Amino acid sequence: MTDFTKTRELFHMPDGLIYLDGNSLGPLPKAAQARVARMMTEEWGERLIRGWNDCGWMAQPTRVGDRIGRLIGAPAGTVTTGDTLSIKVYQALAGALEMRPDRKVVLSDTGNFPTDLYMASGLLDTIGRGYELKLVEPEAVEDAIDDSVAVLLLTEVDYRTGRLHDMAGLTAKAHAAGALTVWDLAHSAGALPVDLAGAGADFAAGCTYKYLNGGPGAPAFIYVAPEHADAARPALSGWLGHEAPFAFDLDYRAGAKIERMRVGTPPVIALAALEAALDAWDEVDMADVRRASIALGDLFIAEVERRCPGLELGSPRDGNARGSQVSFLFDEGYAVMQALIARGVIGDFRAPKTMRFGFTPLYIGESEVLAAAEILERVIAGRLWDRPEYRTRSAVT
Amino acid sequence: MTDFTKTRELFHMPDGLIYLDGNSLGPLPKAAQARVARMMTEEWGERLIRGWNDCGWMAQPTRVGDRIGRLIGAPAGTVTTGDTLSIKVYQALAGALEMRPDRKVVLSDTGNFPTDLYMASGLLDTIGRGYELKLVEPEAVEDAIDDSVAVLLLTEVDYRTGRLHDMAGLTAKAHAAGALTVWDLAHSAGALPVDLAGAGADFAAGCTYKYLNGGPGAPAFIYVAPEHADAARPALSGWLGHEAPFAFDLDYRAGAKIERMRVGTPPVIALAALEAALDAWDEVDMADVRRASIALGDLFIAEVERRCPGLELGSPRDGNARGSQVSFLFDEGYAVMQALIARGVIGDFRAPKTMRFGFTPLYIGESEVLAAAEILERVIAGRLWDRPEYRTRSAVT
Repeated sequence: MTDFTKTRELFHMPDGLIYLDGNSLGPLPKAAQARVARMMTEEWGERLIRGWNDCGWMAQPTRVGDRIGRLIGAPAGTVTTGDTLSIKVYQALAGALEMRPDRKVVLSDTGNFPTDLYMASGLLDTIGRGYELKLVEPEAVEDAIDDSVAVLLLTEVDYRTGRLHDMAGLTAKAHAAGALTVWDLAHSAGALPVDLAGAGADFAAGCTYKYLNGGPGAPAFIYVAPEHADAARPALSGWLGHEAPFAFDLDYRAGAKIERMRVGTPPVIALAALEAALDAWDEVDMADVRRASIALGDLFIAEVERRCPGLELGSPRDGNARGSQVSFLFDEGYAVMQALIARGVIGDFRAPKTMRFGFTPLYIGESEVLAAAEILERVIAGRLWDRPEYRTRSAVT
Repeated sequence: MTDFTKTRELFHMPDGLIYLDGNSLGPLPKAAQARVARMMTEEWGERLIRGWNDCGWMAQPTRVGDRIGRLIGAPAGTVTTGDTLSIKVYQALAGALEMRPDRKVVLSDTGNFPTDLYMASGLLDTIGRGYELKLVEPEAVEDAIDDSVAVLLLTEVDYRTGRLHDMAGLTAKAHAAGALTVWDLAHSAGALPVDLAGAGADFAAGCTYKYLNGGPGAPAFIYVAPEHADAARPALSGWLGHEAPFAFDLDYRAGAKIERMRVGTPPVIALAALEAALDAWDEVDMADVRRASIALGDLFIAEVERRCPGLELGSPRDGNARGSQVSFLFDEGYAVMQALIARGVIGDFRAPKTMRFGFTPLYIGESEVLAAAEILERVIAGRLWDRPEYRTRSAVT
């Protein structure tokens, strides 16, 4: 049984803050702070170039990948880290598309996070030759899978609503139609149990700055199913994915399995932060996290609906059908969120009217949920959001 | 006049070490250490998601890009940072190629750093349609530029020999033949004066962990000439290159100018290290750096040739024809380098027989050069390299 009073102690949380935005940026793990300080002084500072050998920097991307793999049902040696989620989606999609050369359709949905769609469209424009990015509503995905589809590109948890796709079911349907799957786990990894191998997923990618608490702009990860790992061409064929990077050959020869999905020189400092952040998961059972996060989300929904009848639930009511966040819709959602933030309740806002609240049991408990609902009630009932300063949009909304 | 006794104080250098490998990984700037510590505790730790607005994280990539721009002759607003050099080369090459749709040849040379060739070949395979990556010897590049060439893809300073390409001359020749240029500045930025705008370069990219001292795996930079900035399609079209990332549109619309070359969420912690590292350049005149680095390289060549007649110079003898490094060739170069490292002289080795020594006046002076040459003499004359432990290759050679 996971002891959430202990995991809470692993994070730095500013006094008086109710942080319900771990779905956007996880808080600072104390271990990451210490690890990065050591990285700067003892590794970079003292070992300099020797750190690549002495401090294990070169093996770091896949070593960290294996630790993430344990949380997402990926066998050892099938996950590596680096770059950004956008880049890893591009690699995964390019690899998958070439394995279905006779098909020209990438199927995705309008609930996918935009960067996945942008990267896909950039890739298809680069390839040219009549490819199509076909978008349907999330609910229509299952019926849209047919034998024209080369790749099904989906984000498991909808970033706006928290709605959860059925990864195993849709993957099976895609395979039955002869298509491959690329799953984006941005809002899944660390939020809920994921079983990539069990679901038969072909490719997956995710970010680590949300529920994995790797820090702002932390490196992404990519998964390639073992049966594809030696077949997939890494379209972004950088030197660290080469079979022998330090032979400095003029010709590219893809490295073995997941190593070929590495691209350039790894982001050593950021990976050190991420590696230390993953320590928090050592004593955690993901099934416990899931149970607790559903309970926190259910409690928040009940409290908010009781206290703020003007807000509309923007997430599935059934906890098993949503990820680890709850959204409420309100025309003045942006101003309400600013008013909440000014009162120490941090969620975030997604245009046009979604207020998102993330529930991460590693460092959030019932008392924070109750306090947040109470403050939300005061803001709504007292129209405290109705001030010019809360309506002024900032660069990052 | 740059005061190199002052710049030396800006770096942490381990006691007793003679560090001639800043061309691979620059040393730790004290300012970067302090800045990253603040980033972890005061920004990530205390501000959490609010850091994107409060701490300027969102504007960081292009703000840092402008500071690099000053060192490479790039006007404000033409450089941004993020990703790795491999990724930025891919973006630059893809953008350039599409601007010459009637041509199918990418011309490069065998002295280019392999990852540039690997990324180019990955891109051409993705595009398909009969593209060719044509490689010639570095000395043959000029004559190989003809009207079949779409893009000339070169690294200004050869990573093995330090040989310097004539950026202005080759760019002019390329333009006269109707081709565009992509310059890799990995061994140029911070090593010698670069004048991208003056040379008329179309695209450029570089890394920041060498002479710019940004830390292991620090983010890369990309330059797009002002006349191309609103025309070049960013093949890696991530959400932060979108005209309005936080509108979460389903369709990609490229952002203005260099902003479109941003891809995913920026690596905030690594960029903080880099931004602080760039402080070292505030009081530095690049012409002084160049003069001093040539003098150090000349001194090293003279000392080594006098003391170690068995070594063959692998770099241009004329300081104006080489970058900021000097290479010597020796069949047992790997073992010699290990023996040197064991004696506190850090250079590096590139297969099959290149020993590289980098001279960076910001923290290296004559006394280190003389001491390094003396230790090299002892290693060679005494055959101190001839031990099994120095011949065992490590992961990163």
